[in-house]
Amino acid sequence: MRALGDTPVLITAGTAPSRNYPANQYPFRASSHFLYLAGLQLPGASLLLHDGYSRLYVPPPAPDDALWHGTLPGDEDLRAATGVDEVWPISRLALNLDTVPEPGRLPAVPVEDRTPADERVIDAIIDLRLQHDPAAIAELRRAVAVTVRAHAAGRSKTRPGARESEVRAAMEYEMLAADFTPAYSSIVTICGEVLHCHDRSGICQEGDLLLADVGAETDSGWASDVTRTWPVSGRFTASQRAIYEIVLAAQREAINAVKPGYSYRDVHLVACHTLCRGLRDEGLFVGDVDGLVERGAHALFFPHGVGHLLGLDVHDMEDLGDRAGYAPGRKRSQQFGLCYLRLDRDLQPGMAVTIEPGIYFVPAILRNEELTAPFGDSLRLDRLAHFADVRGIRIEDDVLVTETGCEVLTAAIPKAVDEIEQS
Amino acid sequence: MRALGDTPVLITAGTAPSRNYPANQYPFRASSHFLYLAGLQLPGASLLLHDGYSRLYVPPPAPDDALWHGTLPGDEDLRAATGVDEVWPISRLALNLDTVPEPGRLPAVPVEDRTPADERVIDAIIDLRLQHDPAAIAELRRAVAVTVRAHAAGRSKTRPGARESEVRAAMEYEMLAADFTPAYSSIVTICGEVLHCHDRSGICQEGDLLLADVGAETDSGWASDVTRTWPVSGRFTASQRAIYEIVLAAQREAINAVKPGYSYRDVHLVACHTLCRGLRDEGLFVGDVDGLVERGAHALFFPHGVGHLLGLDVHDMEDLGDRAGYAPGRKRSQQFGLCYLRLDRDLQPGMAVTIEPGIYFVPAILRNEELTAPFGDSLRLDRLAHFADVRGIRIEDDVLVTETGCEVLTAAIPKAVDEIEQS
Repeated sequence: MRALGDTPVLITAGTAPSRNYPANQYPFRASSHFLYLAGLQLPGASLLLHDGYSRLYVPPPAPDDALWHGTLPGDEDLRAATGVDEVWPISRLALNLDTVPEPGRLPAVPVEDRTPADERVIDAIIDLRLQHDPAAIAELRRAVAVTVRAHAAGRSKTRPGARESEVRAAMEYEMLAADFTPAYSSIVTICGEVLHCHDRSGICQEGDLLLADVGAETDSGWASDVTRTWPVSGRFTASQRAIYEIVLAAQREAINAVKPGYSYRDVHLVACHTLCRGLRDEGLFVGDVDGLVERGAHALFFPHGVGHLLGLDVHDMEDLGDRAGYAPGRKRSQQFGLCYLRLDRDLQPGMAVTIEPGIYFVPAILRNEELTAPFGDSLRLDRLAHFADVRGIRIEDDVLVTETGCEVLTAAIPKAVDEIEQS
Repeated sequence: MRALGDTPVLITAGTAPSRNYPANQYPFRASSHFLYLAGLQLPGASLLLHDGYSRLYVPPPAPDDALWHGTLPGDEDLRAATGVDEVWPISRLALNLDTVPEPGRLPAVPVEDRTPADERVIDAIIDLRLQHDPAAIAELRRAVAVTVRAHAAGRSKTRPGARESEVRAAMEYEMLAADFTPAYSSIVTICGEVLHCHDRSGICQEGDLLLADVGAETDSGWASDVTRTWPVSGRFTASQRAIYEIVLAAQREAINAVKPGYSYRDVHLVACHTLCRGLRDEGLFVGDVDGLVERGAHALFFPHGVGHLLGLDVHDMEDLGDRAGYAPGRKRSQQFGLCYLRLDRDLQPGMAVTIEPGIYFVPAILRNEELTAPFGDSLRLDRLAHFADVRGIRIEDDVLVTETGCEVLTAAIPKAVDEIEQS
């Protein structure tokens, strides 16, 4: 409110969408802006902030709510739990809106419908949510704690003959048991080269790598986002290990570059360089690494960005578009690969980001002449056959920027190589 | 199409709703009408049936779909899998609609917006979906098979000190491992008297009953819906056992009344009579059972209906309202209790219904003078204290009407009493 002067803010929590018929709903999840400020999952509620004063508007209980849903919290309970000044029935909202200037609205309306008040509010909430305070960091750690258990359960469920869906279920069990949910649709697949693979009907076979991109969300909405790739049999082949170690080195060097004041785009480029050097050393590229990276050669194997903001959304504030992810004056590149980078800001203490390099052998890219032709003989397509058993490897951790560098929040989740070296 | 003559049908599959931001979506679930006819979960697709000819319209792949989502099925794959005559890009739909009469639409639009064509189509789909064919029954059995495992897992996870969420997670694990989903938001609670209790933070204690209303949905959308109530310690108290046996008897007698030609409202009333007699025998009512049931006394302890249709929706075709659940000419009662009965049709072979009587000690009902006063001294509120450890008990099975009677599809899921008698 201090940042906004006389501009009020109206933040709606939203309602649970219907699944196959109106009364059969998906689990309710309040909008992240509402959760950030109110802290409770209250369907149909709105929060009006103006001039140092906060009012929460909630739907009144239906006549038979006590029958179907039991005793619900009263206004005084809600006031105490949220810290707002007043709680009102939602029917009062329209009346009260008549007494204040036009508010800025969250969640954000589409760009073409935004008023100047909307724009001011968007900038104010980005300022708040970019750097996490200790309470937010504590919630991120709660999300991580359950994600640690989930990944341990997934690894111990993996064996030749297991269904991908069984491994995923073992991981999500840990979230559900804690009364958490998956922060996003879990990816648990032996087809690591399909970046958003949600098919889960595959059977893990000896010789496969299993890629698990699985993170928990706390009951209050805070997310984690972790990927590990491990060999189904417990042993990499030589080609798998070679590529895994390149990705691991890229991740290590990218994490080393996460420091206050450094730009996230540079962190991305650190990863690109390490990946490209590794691919060249494995004979997949020929030539000068700097030149290859500049031309975007690495993106043939690493087409996505090195990560994104993390917070109440797994891609934090993605609903606000690049206004949240890109610092003022910075714009997305048009280059294949870099165009998928979701974040380009200078890092500051309290920001949480993922660091998730990967190497993928994607047929849709490597057989696409439009994408490969510019690299001519620098790209050694004849070497691909040697890596046929790799498919896709990604290693992703959640990283908190500190005053002096960074802390890997998810460090407790072992890398496949650690384990193999111990065994 | 035979039933509809020249009226075309346009059936949309729907799209996945967003969760906290547009790209983070809930798991997609096609509309049940679309699934019934097309059999595939195809987001954004539409089906146009007219004059003996069927056309499926699908969104074309986005340019980078192959990168993010891998190889998607082509038109010929879709044609073979769905059995339609033609597959077209969705952009063609508007053109083709220009060449046919105004179609009836599914899912149904709100009542006030319905055209005569919509009404004809609604009646035709109800006719199709009311009685399940062998393929549908096979799907219901697949849903049941996983629900059997889920309930077994839930019971073995239950112990004093376990969180409700752990028991629920153990049950849902079985669904996820099979690549199925819950058919509805699972209820796993020690507060059985809260009919739709979705709070899962409770801890199971010695002496509690745990009520688990949990059913799986197959990958093709077919539902099961099963409730069991079991003692956390493995042993009922005397009062819990007394009430449990009343519910069990009511369920047995209601199931015995499920036969072709019998009305489902009568099945409901059979349960009401048995429950009321049992409650009277336990001293909670005084007087003549027939008279008590006629006045709706049983609804003070059994406020909901004895069940509903089951199929592709857990409340099958509830999107069509009582037009599906109530036979032409029948209307919902205004009486408390009976007003919640979702189904009043004469049973026919191939119909699947749930049978789910219960007894609940709901403070919001039993302390509501408006509801209790009409029964005066027939209701013995002074006896309530004796049943304070019961809270709520429901027993629910999925029942298929056969040519001669019925088959309990979920008979493999043990009742609590069976187990105790064996021990």
